[in-house]
Amino acid sequence: MSIERSPLAPASFPAMPVVAGVELAGGAAGVRYADRPDLALMTFAPGTTVGGVFTRSHVPGHPIVWCRQILERGRARALVVNAGNANVLNGGHGDAAVQMEATAAAGLLNAAPEEIFVASTGVIGEPLPVEKIVRTLPDLHERLSPDGWEAAAEAIRTTNTFAKGSFAKTTIGGRDVTIAGIAKGSGMIQPDMATMLAFIATDAGLPAPVLQQLVEEANEEAFRKITVDSDTSTSDMLLMFATGQAVHPAPLDASSELLSAFRPALLGVACDLAKQVVRDGEGISKFIQIAVEGAISDESARIIAHSVANSPLVKTAIAGEDANWGRIVAALGKAYQPIELSALGITVGGHVVATKGARLPGLDEQPIAEHLKGREIDITITVGPGDGQATVWTSDLTHDYITINADYRS
Amino acid sequence: MSIERSPLAPASFPAMPVVAGVELAGGAAGVRYADRPDLALMTFAPGTTVGGVFTRSHVPGHPIVWCRQILERGRARALVVNAGNANVLNGGHGDAAVQMEATAAAGLLNAAPEEIFVASTGVIGEPLPVEKIVRTLPDLHERLSPDGWEAAAEAIRTTNTFAKGSFAKTTIGGRDVTIAGIAKGSGMIQPDMATMLAFIATDAGLPAPVLQQLVEEANEEAFRKITVDSDTSTSDMLLMFATGQAVHPAPLDASSELLSAFRPALLGVACDLAKQVVRDGEGISKFIQIAVEGAISDESARIIAHSVANSPLVKTAIAGEDANWGRIVAALGKAYQPIELSALGITVGGHVVATKGARLPGLDEQPIAEHLKGREIDITITVGPGDGQATVWTSDLTHDYITINADYRS
Repeated sequence: MSIERSPLAPASFPAMPVVAGVELAGGAAGVRYADRPDLALMTFAPGTTVGGVFTRSHVPGHPIVWCRQILERGRARALVVNAGNANVLNGGHGDAAVQMEATAAAGLLNAAPEEIFVASTGVIGEPLPVEKIVRTLPDLHERLSPDGWEAAAEAIRTTNTFAKGSFAKTTIGGRDVTIAGIAKGSGMIQPDMATMLAFIATDAGLPAPVLQQLVEEANEEAFRKITVDSDTSTSDMLLMFATGQAVHPAPLDASSELLSAFRPALLGVACDLAKQVVRDGEGISKFIQIAVEGAISDESARIIAHSVANSPLVKTAIAGEDANWGRIVAALGKAYQPIELSALGITVGGHVVATKGARLPGLDEQPIAEHLKGREIDITITVGPGDGQATVWTSDLTHDYITINADYRS
Repeated sequence: MSIERSPLAPASFPAMPVVAGVELAGGAAGVRYADRPDLALMTFAPGTTVGGVFTRSHVPGHPIVWCRQILERGRARALVVNAGNANVLNGGHGDAAVQMEATAAAGLLNAAPEEIFVASTGVIGEPLPVEKIVRTLPDLHERLSPDGWEAAAEAIRTTNTFAKGSFAKTTIGGRDVTIAGIAKGSGMIQPDMATMLAFIATDAGLPAPVLQQLVEEANEEAFRKITVDSDTSTSDMLLMFATGQAVHPAPLDASSELLSAFRPALLGVACDLAKQVVRDGEGISKFIQIAVEGAISDESARIIAHSVANSPLVKTAIAGEDANWGRIVAALGKAYQPIELSALGITVGGHVVATKGARLPGLDEQPIAEHLKGREIDITITVGPGDGQATVWTSDLTHDYITINADYRS
């Protein structure tokens, strides 16, 4: 099966900047397929701090368990990422494999294994051929470069239809700092490729607790907004590294005024990466934004928005360019959240479909049908008079999704 | 678009028995389409009791609101069901339409409007052309017959690929009683046809509180086990009527020994109807049973089983006859329920795939692949050492699902 570049992909991989203290390389270790980039190495200058957020899955992969544990130290010297095997549900062998990766990278960098973060994406429940990774790491170490962003993004791409990168230049206390990141994920672009991975680095100097707070905010405002098919991976991971190579006044806590430019710049990079993941959603033909307003709380709004975004009936209707707003109503109801029917309103592409709990009198479906023919679909739903709001980004559900996920081996 | 009879449909509609005190008719009111059966009338002898369970949707249809209200009286003389329009989100007009239906049927039967149950299935948010229903009811009333089961099932079928009926003959206190029911639903077989409706009648004499208890049990053990696409309708409804025409000792409460034969017979009818709904799942090519064992509670097991059953990735893998058990693992994890990894086990078609938290050493995928080529797929998942268990029935996710739901209007 050949997979074409998503129609919603950006024109090209961005011209990524150097982030002082960060070097990268990508290469082919042959974890699952020969001669395909499947191993990335990122290294960080001594003193680099780290923050991270991990999958909520109750069946987490072995790398997740390791990273959660060492994150408490708040220090990072390297990140090793392989594709082709997720190293999940492999018992003692799975933990030992992670240890071997960390030890091998630590040896190359004269660092402690507990400073080496490890991520894996690919098939679940098959022993990781860790010796192939360990054997390839010295080659990657030799080829490390501050310009290696695209090579690293390609190495973790698996069968994503495009490599994903984003960056921002901003300031802390008036001094220049840079943020750059790469990501991988598209629902599950192949049966065995499950995972959303995102790695962001900055040359800013940020104490680990400050960085952790910023990462959690970025996750909440960006990655938690996306859903392709409601399937959460065993291996989802967002890590951010701060090398401290830029010179600037030190923000002592996450609420520091010094971060007034940095925070939105980071959020911009995180949202760009998150949206790129959706734009590579399996079989996507439309990028859909669903905004819910007027809920009793932001969390309630988020549950309602996800209920609509994950409804197969809503997603197929949009794929079919069908202004079937009854499906949105049904999806709202099955969120089991408080809804004030008399205040219920729905707009599609800015056009009012329903208001005050009933269809707009004299509704003209034509402009809505026009909007649905486009690539970017906007739906806004008012569920009551409350202050709670949330936005979700998702893809439509098409024949290509089925083809990618059901017919792959046939 | 022509819709073929589901490959998993039973050979034919069953030869339904007479249930003393019940008469039925079906006809064409032209609610949405001309000359298509879309209206069913069931009448019940004076003294008939009723129990019911309704959608948990927070956007319930107007008929749901009415039925919930009159159910408290516990008495029923008739049920009016229309297809083509769900009468949801129609404001004051929606409530008035229900009143008109109930009043019209009550007039024909010399009953109170509060003894008339009303159900609707079809498009959401369009005013119900209630005058067409009211105008057609007298004709149905004249054609009422104890043998009208199939006509009624056909009238509520909409675009389900087959009419659904089931019955059982059993005893209460050694005396013969009969149970018979019809149902409608298949996920959403068409964009506008959302609803799962099930109506069961018996000639047994059961006090309303006893009947209500039995209905709730049947719902829990049968209809709550099914999921086609995770989309809950605004109008789902299960009603059961007991005419009291059979002569038998009276069970005074639901735990009475007198119900020892009746209870499993009712459960058999309910499970048969529920499975028929799944067997008519949109685009279905496989009937899938997912059993979860060893959870901390039955409710936890149910959440896990539904997480697996509703995973688009699991459903597409099974459609593709792909023994991709990693997707089952991912779906387990995203249920966010307690799982004891060291006790995790998965069998497919009775063949062990994973045990004690890891893939079976030397796993032979061949017999599993053979099982997946069949029409009936069995998956058993052990998630720990607990006593909690649950079973879910679902369909696979195929190209035809997308065709039915996305391409209908094109």
